[in-house]
Amino acid sequence: MRILGIDPGSVATGWGLVEVVDGTVRHVAHGTVRPPRGGSLASRLAFLHTGLGEVIGSYEPGRAVVERVFVSRNPRSALVLGHARGAVLAALGGARIAVDELSAREIKQAVVGTGSASKSQVQEMVTKLLALRAKPASDAADALAAAISAAHRGRLPALGVVGRRRRPTRRRAGWSSGGRA
Amino acid sequence: MRILGIDPGSVATGWGLVEVVDGTVRHVAHGTVRPPRGGSLASRLAFLHTGLGEVIGSYEPGRAVVERVFVSRNPRSALVLGHARGAVLAALGGARIAVDELSAREIKQAVVGTGSASKSQVQEMVTKLLALRAKPASDAADALAAAISAAHRGRLPALGVVGRRRRPTRRRAGWSSGGRA
Repeated sequence: MRILGIDPGSVATGWGLVEVVDGTVRHVAHGTVRPPRGGSLASRLAFLHTGLGEVIGSYEPGRAVVERVFVSRNPRSALVLGHARGAVLAALGGARIAVDELSAREIKQAVVGTGSASKSQVQEMVTKLLALRAKPASDAADALAAAISAAHRGRLPALGVVGRRRRPTRRRAGWSSGGRA
Repeated sequence: MRILGIDPGSVATGWGLVEVVDGTVRHVAHGTVRPPRGGSLASRLAFLHTGLGEVIGSYEPGRAVVERVFVSRNPRSALVLGHARGAVLAALGGARIAVDELSAREIKQAVVGTGSASKSQVQEMVTKLLALRAKPASDAADALAAAISAAHRGRLPALGVVGRRRRPTRRRAGWSSGGRA
């Protein structure tokens, strides 16, 4: 099962794909869809929609996950984020891919071990956990972090997220970086 | 030139198409794209995107117009509206259709003659101005009103919107309902 994490944004939408093989979360691909500057809002949203469509077509994820929006943003930034999410979610829905939402806190908790982790801590941990040669850009790192979190929640509901006490009777989820699986 | 007005909403997105022939604004078609209830957010947004794509493919509008968002909405409703707008605008951008924004006030002013007109006044005036046999549903009426306003602004910049003083040296824009052109 391939899981596509997405960090929607109108300036740049990060995406990251992982797969779970023998209980281990492995990196597949990641990237950023960045509409050309100066285009109209509609053309930029179409660029996001098409770009995500190409990622979906190339990698055929079975599930997707996006960050849940924290509601106390100001209305203007909520609208701007809503535009990007609308274009991205329409692409996922058009491909009949189920989309989960996880809060930023849940994602950070799962990947770094603390819900208050910084962006750069998320980048570091994603790089380490997936044994990447180079740090992904921040948007793509956030997307990979979401995908990793979803992989863990989906595969091992009894374990919950990384950082919680784990049941000794269950096999622990591992990471592609090590032989912990 | 056909102008497509759109009133985006996640529950129902109204659309209305007018064309300007010999200075007269004529009704072409209107309708509502209403995603099935109970589907996921992504599937509903995909439904809107596809539905608008079908309208665009069928009627080939040259321009589109959507209502500008009033920024003091609360963040949650701004996000929800942003989702619907994102899906709709991505469909327009994908078809390379230029999109204008007009404020609700500008649209009401243009169609009813007062910026504080009610929804039912807009419905009444749209029905009358376009000589429709039946009142369109509220979402479609708002979309038609936006298209009418854009038609007037685009074709007759010196006249401005209906209700302003008009230049006697210019031919007045008429409506399909009468011989006022």
